[in-house]
This record gives sequence, structure tokens and C-alpha cells, in this order.
Amino acid sequence: MKLNCDLGESFGAWQMGQDELVMPHIDMANIACGFHAGDPHVINHTLALAKKCNTEIGAHPSYPDTLGFGRRSMKCSPAEIIDLMLYQIAALDGMAQSQGLKLTYVKPHGALYNDMMADSQIFAAILQAIAQYYRPLKLMILANADAENYRKKAKALGIKLIFEAFADRRYSQSGSLLPRSQAGAVLDKNATLAQVKSLTASGQVIADNGQSIRIDADTICVHGDNLDSVSLIKEIRQLCQ
Amino acid sequence: MKLNCDLGESFGAWQMGQDELVMPHIDMANIACGFHAGDPHVINHTLALAKKCNTEIGAHPSYPDTLGFGRRSMKCSPAEIIDLMLYQIAALDGMAQSQGLKLTYVKPHGALYNDMMADSQIFAAILQAIAQYYRPLKLMILANADAENYRKKAKALGIKLIFEAFADRRYSQSGSLLPRSQAGAVLDKNATLAQVKSLTASGQVIADNGQSIRIDADTICVHGDNLDSVSLIKEIRQLCQ
Amino acid sequence: MKLNCDLGESFGAWQMGQDELVMPHIDMANIACGFHAGDPHVINHTLALAKKCNTEIGAHPSYPDTLGFGRRSMKCSPAEIIDLMLYQIAALDGMAQSQGLKLTYVKPHGALYNDMMADSQIFAAILQAIAQYYRPLKLMILANADAENYRKKAKALGIKLIFEAFADRRYSQSGSLLPRSQAGAVLDKNATLAQVKSLTASGQVIADNGQSIRIDADTICVHGDNLDSVSLIKEIRQLCQ
Amino acid sequence: MKLNCDLGESFGAWQMGQDELVMPHIDMANIACGFHAGDPHVINHTLALAKKCNTEIGAHPSYPDTLGFGRRSMKCSPAEIIDLMLYQIAALDGMAQSQGLKLTYVKPHGALYNDMMADSQIFAAILQAIAQYYRPLKLMILANADAENYRKKAKALGIKLIFEAFADRRYSQSGSLLPRSQAGAVLDKNATLAQVKSLTASGQVIADNGQSIRIDADTICVHGDNLDSVSLIKEIRQLCQ
Repeated sequence: MKLNCDLGESFGAWQMGQDELVMPHIDMANIACGFHAGDPHVINHTLALAKKCNTEIGAHPSYPDTLGFGRRSMKCSPAEIIDLMLYQIAALDGMAQSQGLKLTYVKPHGALYNDMMADSQIFAAILQAIAQYYRPLKLMILANADAENYRKKAKALGIKLIFEAFADRRYSQSGSLLPRSQAGAVLDKNATLAQVKSLTASGQVIADNGQSIRIDADTICVHGDNLDSVSLIKEIRQLCQ
Repeated sequence: MKLNCDLGESFGAWQMGQDELVMPHIDMANIACGFHAGDPHVINHTLALAKKCNTEIGAHPSYPDTLGFGRRSMKCSPAEIIDLMLYQIAALDGMAQSQGLKLTYVKPHGALYNDMMADSQIFAAILQAIAQYYRPLKLMILANADAENYRKKAKALGIKLIFEAFADRRYSQSGSLLPRSQAGAVLDKNATLAQVKSLTASGQVIADNGQSIRIDADTICVHGDNLDSVSLIKEIRQLCQ
Repeated sequence: MKLNCDLGESFGAWQMGQDELVMPHIDMANIACGFHAGDPHVINHTLALAKKCNTEIGAHPSYPDTLGFGRRSMKCSPAEIIDLMLYQIAALDGMAQSQGLKLTYVKPHGALYNDMMADSQIFAAILQAIAQYYRPLKLMILANADAENYRKKAKALGIKLIFEAFADRRYSQSGSLLPRSQAGAVLDKNATLAQVKSLTASGQVIADNGQSIRIDADTICVHGDNLDSVSLIKEIRQLCQ
Repeated sequence: MKLNCDLGESFGAWQMGQDELVMPHIDMANIACGFHAGDPHVINHTLALAKKCNTEIGAHPSYPDTLGFGRRSMKCSPAEIIDLMLYQIAALDGMAQSQGLKLTYVKPHGALYNDMMADSQIFAAILQAIAQYYRPLKLMILANADAENYRKKAKALGIKLIFEAFADRRYSQSGSLLPRSQAGAVLDKNATLAQVKSLTASGQVIADNGQSIRIDADTICVHGDNLDSVSLIKEIRQLCQ
């Protein structure tokens, strides 16, 4: 089971995340492309760090909203989404290739990620962007009960999907994440580790109604915001070899 | 003698330039990369237009100053310049490759262009950025009396230079452009056409003191801001086959 | 019947609108505040023009989306909307007072305007922002069948409303504007002038089903994008003395 | 001797500074206005904090360079500087008045501050901006040997100056600050406290050549970046009652 983490989310004079401490313990680095976070210097620095740690890299493109950190949904047209995805992917990939690296996948960020899962037009636009890109890239989306449907749409454009589960979020019976606003949506440390164990051992998690549900995931998303979360990543790493 | 022109300088809802009318008559399109002008949609649209007209394309990167249109010098460090060049070149090139095109050169924009010609540290940073980029790209600079010196520095990093002359600007005896603020710095239509004729026939222009000076240029920069300038481009085109 | 128009929507090197030609013929200038258009220089220039023409001025604040010209809805929280309204109103008003002018009203721009009319939480946030501002300002909204309800909410916070009608847009029977995407939504010149006549004479317009409906408007919104629309404004002005 | 500190320099999701811990111990808060740092929410939050602590507030305007945190000099014209100052001052002041507060002074930030001290045209533009603002505001500048000259220029426009000294920076014999790049330019904790003692007791500091020089300062600038600097502020506070 691979671990993926959002990295390169500093911006100019503002630091965010414990990238140096996190990078050695993850398999896939989702690197911000400059629209919600990251800037040319941060990107180049993060790529160098990924290279040093031999970490697989993906583009983490966003709506154009630095102030809102890409967390606010924006009514972009499919055509706008295609273009803003291409720009961000290209910028990161060309900088990566200039360090001898290559992107292998794309994971939309924040509101764009949520909108992709909730709105089939936006999912289609994101697939289109990746299909238009001149090199093949996979797309990372949320592992969900309707995976086959997503897979079929992606396959029609020759795109492979990567499904991710969340270590620290409670699932509903339907396989979606409880909204953060709901009590119990975010798991504490022990519940997180238990969920990771269960995901890796049996591909199952305990939903909020107490029943086991199946979550077929290729990778687990972890967070590296502070020293506590870095320490949690290390424990999760022990469970995911 | 090739003609080059800055294109793709619209931004969001704001139109600039007569790109559709200009593109068929030029050889090289310097395309804005999103930092002084251009946005993902404008870039993709401009690339499609260049493809249709079979125009050679180059990156036209800038200081990060949309409000100032890249015309205000910014005290960026060499390291900052390298990173912001790489980001912009990569974004444009990846989008170009996604349309089956490839950038062949870079021409810095506005204040970055002027600073490159005036400050050897900035010229060195720009060469470094191009050298770090994973594909070879030429660099377009101002044709000037000290060309050999620039060529030598570029060659040391394996970079070829393209020298451009200006059709509508008066040169000083030393081969530099008169500053726009100076009377007579910008040529009228007839003087422009005369200068183009002289440049193409003999590689010479009449400087502001009345003497002929040598300007070894590979390309002439033209402007496509409005219908008059489009009409002038067509006349210049007649002189530069 | 007063005429209002969006002005000051140039940005940096990009021109938009025929502000110099429009300003003398309107009563109320909705001035962009720098978030969808306008910048400190454009604002100061537009204020000077309003002063010269003795035009009443209002703030035209927007979601923070220059690239999208404030036309894309953004999922901002009510608290975010209050703060971004206050910032923009304050910036424009302080610059206006520095020219001896004072804002008298606020008209949200683009997607923020549409969201205000469609979402009562956003309308409430906009009222809150104006109520928090240290000087009393009116709020301009779309004249609509539910005017009394809007008026009641505004009055609760001590805010007066200004209702505007559109000269060149077809109304539905319910008193809302037909969406631009629908055929016949935008009126041609003659239909526009007929609608203005009807609005000023009887407070009525012919809806898309052919029936007369009542539109109680204090002001009519006109557009000054190009020379044709400037000429139309002059004809509308003849009808609205 | 008053203490002043730069505050409100968070931006969107990015935190900077220990504002909550610093505000109770300083006299004057220089609040970022949204061009190098700060955003409408951060500004409103910082104003509320200043109100709670009864701290005097000033505008801390900057070149328009969020990515560069206002630390990169930009070749703005005097007219551009006047307009960008007015916009930022007005935004902050209107938000302050909406909380029942009023700005009393302006302290330019970063590169704009340095350029103001180094270039008399920029100093003149900054004075012009403050003179054009509709309420009287003081201007904070670096205490320096040429104070009388600055004071005279300010007085000609009816503007009062506030002179600040730096607690933790070594002065040269001429009364300027040693550039940060120079060894010994930044004082350690004990040297900082000694300099503060000397400034408050006798208006003198020991320059880098060992000689005492006179620094007539109204306020000392302190920094609140981290917990160590907060603790140092408290010690400085003990010395400046």
C-alpha cells in the first residue's frame, strides 16, 4: 500500500508543511503547481527533495485561488478547467524533466478534487486535460463504491486511475467521507492506525454505522502539516510496507 | 530576414493585440507565459493559431507583474530569475507539445529583457535557466555592438543566440536603442520602412547622429497592437522575404 | 429615472470600456474596486472623471477573481464575503474622499451580484458588510417581484435599497431576467429603447410570454463597452430625463 | 520610547508571526494592507486584536508583490507609488473606522521603505500620497543623521514624521544600518538589549567602529516572528516604559 502526501505548499515567504521530514517516508508526492500554493522556487526545491528521496511525483493542480488555498469551489467551465490543468501540469512536468524527473500522475487539489468526485462534467474535463497532455499520466481519485464507472470513463480516454483512501477520515456506509463538519469525521491517532491496518489487511474499513465496507485503494493519503502528523506518518509507514 | 512579434498578451476578459491578423505575416511568435500577460486559455488559443499559421514559437517570460505588464524592473535574485524562467518556459512548452508543437527559443519580456541587456548577472541567470531546461532552446537578444561577448557566454552553456533588430526604433551611434522618452526615438512609418530596407539590404541603419552603423540581426521585431500596425507589418513583410 | 453603468474596468495595460464617453451621460457610476478589475491608478482616474462629470459614485465589489473578471461564482463563506466587501468598499471610499467625493451606494459585481439575488445567506452577508461599514451606504439590487422581502431585510439593518432594471434584457413573467444563454434574452436596439420607454412611462415591461409585468425600478443599468453602446446610452438618456 | 512591530502578515491559509502574543506588548502596530501580506480577513482580525489591546495602528503599505513579500524593489513611477499607497491606506483605514479605530500613521514596508530612504523622488511620492489622503497621517521613517532634511520636506506638505530605531541592528558610523549581508549586522540578544538601554537612556548607540553616535528616535522597531522574539520583546518592553 503506497502512501501519498500533498507537498510543496509553501508560498513565497510563507512556510507550510514539514516537507523535508515527510518526503523520506512517503511513496508519492502530490506537488502544488502554483495556483493554490507553491511558486517557481518552492516547486524546484520540492522536486529536488523528491529526487533525493526517490519519491514518485504527481501534479497537484488547483482552481486559481491562492488566497483561498484552492479550497473554494469556483464555477469554471469545462474548457477553463482543461486549460488550467494543462498549464499547471506542464509547468511542473517541464521543471521536473529539467531535474531528470517525470510526473507519473495527477491529483486535483481541494475544491477541484471534491468537484471532480461530485460532478461528472468536471470529472470529464479533468480526463480531457490529461488526455490532451502530450505524455500519459494517471489520475488519482477517491476510492469509492462506484469505482467501475469512473474507471470506464477514464479507460475510454486511455487513462489509468489510482484510487486513494484516507487514513484519518471516517467513511459513511455508502463509501463516501463524512464531511469534516460532522462530529467524528476526523479520526484520532489510534482510530487512524486501526483504519490503516484494516485497509491494508482486508481492504475494509468500519463505516460510521459500525458496519464493515470495502474500500479498494491503491494508496493512502497522509498529511504532513506538523511534527505530530510526521510522527503519525512514520507509524502508518510501519503498517504499509 | 525573419519577423518576430509579441503575441498572446490578452488576459482574461481583456483583449490586447491583433493576433489573428498578425500571425499569418510573421515568422516567430513570442508567446506570453502568464506572468505579465496571457493565461491558460489565451496561451492555448495562441498556440492553436500559431499551429494553423505554421509559425515558429518562442516563450516570452516576464517578471511576475501582471498589473505592471512586466514593464517594471524587479530586484529578483539570479536564483529567482532561473526558477521563474523555468516555470514559464515549461508551462508554455508542455502546452505546446500537447498541441504537437515545440518551442524553439526564449525571448524575455519587457523589463526582464532590458535588464538582461544591461546587467551581466541577469544575462547569466537567463542563460542558466535555458541551460537547465531539459530541451535545447535558443535565446533571442538585442542585436548590439558587443554581440561576440554575448555569443561567447551563451556558447559556454551550449546555447545559441538569435539577434533581433527593431524596425521602428532609432539607434544611437553605439548601437543601442534611444530611450523611448527621447525625441525621435520612435520612427514614423516611412522611416521604419526605410530602416527595414537598409537592415535587410546591407545590415546597416542610420544612427541618430546621421552615421551608418552595422546591426547584425537575424530577425526584426514588429508590433501588432492595432490595425495600423498590422498594415505596417504587411509592408515590412514585403521587404523581408 | 437614473442611469447606472459599470465603469473603471480597465486593468494595468489593458483598456476596457468607453469611460470618458459614457460618464457624462449617466447618473451613477459603479466603480470596480480592484478585485475583478480596476487597479489603484484606474480607480483614481475613474474617480477624477466622475468628479468632473458630477456623477454619483458607488462601489462595485467582486469576488477575488481578476482572471475570471468576477464572473465565476466562488464558494466564499459569509464571513469571507463580509471582509472582502469591506476591504473593497473602504479602498474605493478612502480614495474617493481624498478627491473630495463620497460613495453613496454599493452594487456587487457579476457572480457576486447573481449569488446575492439567488442565495439569501449571501444577501445577508452583503447587508452585514454594508451595516458594518462606518458610513451609511445604499445597496443596489435587481428590481424583482419579491422586492418587499428584500427591503424588509435591508431595513432591519438600516440599509436603503436601490432597485435597478435592465434596459437590454428580456424579463420572464416572474420578473427575473432570462438567462443570457436563452434565445431572445438580450434585446436589440429598438426593443431596448421600447423597454426603456415602457419602464419610464408606466413601470412595466413586456415579459417573454407577451404579458406586461410591473418592474419598480429606481435606475436602469446601461453598458458602455463600445461606441455602439455609447450611442445607445445617449438615446436612452433622451428617454430618461 | 514606543515599540512598533509589523503585524497582520499572514495570508490566506499561511500563518506568519505571533500577533496574539506580540500585540499586548507593543505601542504601535504596523498592519499589512494586502499587497505584500495580509488579506481582508487577516486585516479585520488584526484590527480587532489591536482594538482589544488598545494599540495605536498604522498602515504598512508595500509594492504589489505578494510572492516576494514586498522585499523586491520594483521600478514604480512616483504616480504609481502615490496610487498604490492611497489604495492600501484607504482600505485599511476604512476597515479600521468600521471597527471604531483610526489609523494615525503610515510606515512603508520592505523594499518600499528602503527605496524611500535611498531615493528622494520616492520619499517625495510617499509624502504626496499621505498629503492627498483625506485625513492627516504621520509618516514613520528611519531615524538618521539627515533627519532635519526629511523633516523639512514633510513639513512643507503638513506631514509629521516619526523616527524609528532598530533594536537588533548594528549601525554604521554614519547612522545607517549595516546591510544584513554584512557580518555583525544583526545583534544577538544581549547586544540588542544593550542597544535598547543606550537608546532609551541617552539616545545613543555604539556604531560598528566602536564610537557612540546619536540616534534620535521616537520608537524602536521590534520583531515578533517566533516565540524567542516574543520573549525578547517582553524584555525590551521592560526597558521602554
